[in-house]
Amino acid sequence: MTYCIGLKVDEGLVFLSDSRTNAGVDHINTFRKMTIIEIAHERVLVLLTSGNLAISQAVLHELSNSDVHALEAAPNMIAAARAVGDALRRVYARDAESLQNFGLDFAASFILGGQIGNKPVSLFQIYAAGNFIEATTDTAYFQIGEAKYGKPILDRVIEPSTSLNDAAKCSLISMDSTIRSNLSVGMPLDLLIYQTNSLQVKNHVNIHHDDAYFQHLRSDWGNHLREAFHNLPDTPY
Amino acid sequence: MTYCIGLKVDEGLVFLSDSRTNAGVDHINTFRKMTIIEIAHERVLVLLTSGNLAISQAVLHELSNSDVHALEAAPNMIAAARAVGDALRRVYARDAESLQNFGLDFAASFILGGQIGNKPVSLFQIYAAGNFIEATTDTAYFQIGEAKYGKPILDRVIEPSTSLNDAAKCSLISMDSTIRSNLSVGMPLDLLIYQTNSLQVKNHVNIHHDDAYFQHLRSDWGNHLREAFHNLPDTPY
Repeated sequence: MTYCIGLKVDEGLVFLSDSRTNAGVDHINTFRKMTIIEIAHERVLVLLTSGNLAISQAVLHELSNSDVHALEAAPNMIAAARAVGDALRRVYARDAESLQNFGLDFAASFILGGQIGNKPVSLFQIYAAGNFIEATTDTAYFQIGEAKYGKPILDRVIEPSTSLNDAAKCSLISMDSTIRSNLSVGMPLDLLIYQTNSLQVKNHVNIHHDDAYFQHLRSDWGNHLREAFHNLPDTPY
Repeated sequence: MTYCIGLKVDEGLVFLSDSRTNAGVDHINTFRKMTIIEIAHERVLVLLTSGNLAISQAVLHELSNSDVHALEAAPNMIAAARAVGDALRRVYARDAESLQNFGLDFAASFILGGQIGNKPVSLFQIYAAGNFIEATTDTAYFQIGEAKYGKPILDRVIEPSTSLNDAAKCSLISMDSTIRSNLSVGMPLDLLIYQTNSLQVKNHVNIHHDDAYFQHLRSDWGNHLREAFHNLPDTPY
């Protein structure tokens, strides 16, 4: 499995992905699930992928198949989301029947976000069918993959006015909860923080097991949670 | 959907269930999912059900079909778990094919826990196939239904040495996280706290929307969480 988050707040976007792919617990590999397209001072787009790895990779090949990468050529974010959807549909046309012969679903889900020129920052979730939805102020984030474990903390903290730093911190806690509860989501992590109108990738880090901040965050959060728990009033029942 | 938790700690057992059943969001009903068998000073058994409501109810009918309720007659907890599994298999034999004709899975999952006489307290999870597993010191709890949202807090807090009161409090927080993130899990709640060797139901409450303690717990926990979150160090990335 996979767990990826794309968050949209007033200050910009946060993207976080794990890097574990598996076909059964005895076959676990590490693949990056974050693709970054940057033309400095012109555009930054980030694509997160989940689902069948062969499908995800085929979609990435489709996007980079021409002389110019489809996400570099797209005139705006809607066109970029459509390009991903169209690539998914071409892969479906080629592969879905063969997958079905082996009882495999055509499972794929993508998060695409970024900014092109002076147009607004956008965030999309793209489904296996190639259709997509866009984040609004009501839904400030999208999750793909193993989403449920890490949802409660996002629901409690994230609002449009949340700072980029808090949004990044919250996404890391959401990821930590997921990694603790589900073996199929694992380190290292890819974190990218995009500040609106910067049109550059300034904050992209690869977080490994021995990352001091993430280790500190995990143990601190665990301690704070247990402390908060023990400060709650006892049940009267 | 449903969310039910059965927790086993050194001091005893905690059972918590919601009461929402639904077939699509326009068809939501409230049914109790907790069945209690009590013969004072002799046995206490609690059965939590999730899955297709017709199957759950058919299993309960099967168990109470004879002169003596199967869970009142069982000589020990293993026999009680087997009685539930056998009832499930009889319902499967009768209903599974017809359900399949309408594209419906035979979906059912149960948690059974309790104590009979001076034998040890036991907790089981029983699958749709009628087979079951028993809680050990390594797995101190079982969840059925919409389990993922509320799992991280259980993983962080529950140990065999956790007090019954803390176990009950933790189960309520786990339920709160689930209710917030998933529309198909809802109030009122059934909470039962069983103290080892009491062989009586002393603490069984029905918790409604206006329950002062649960309201207080929800808002307190939310505040503590946000406070804990803001006390965490900022990301260096």
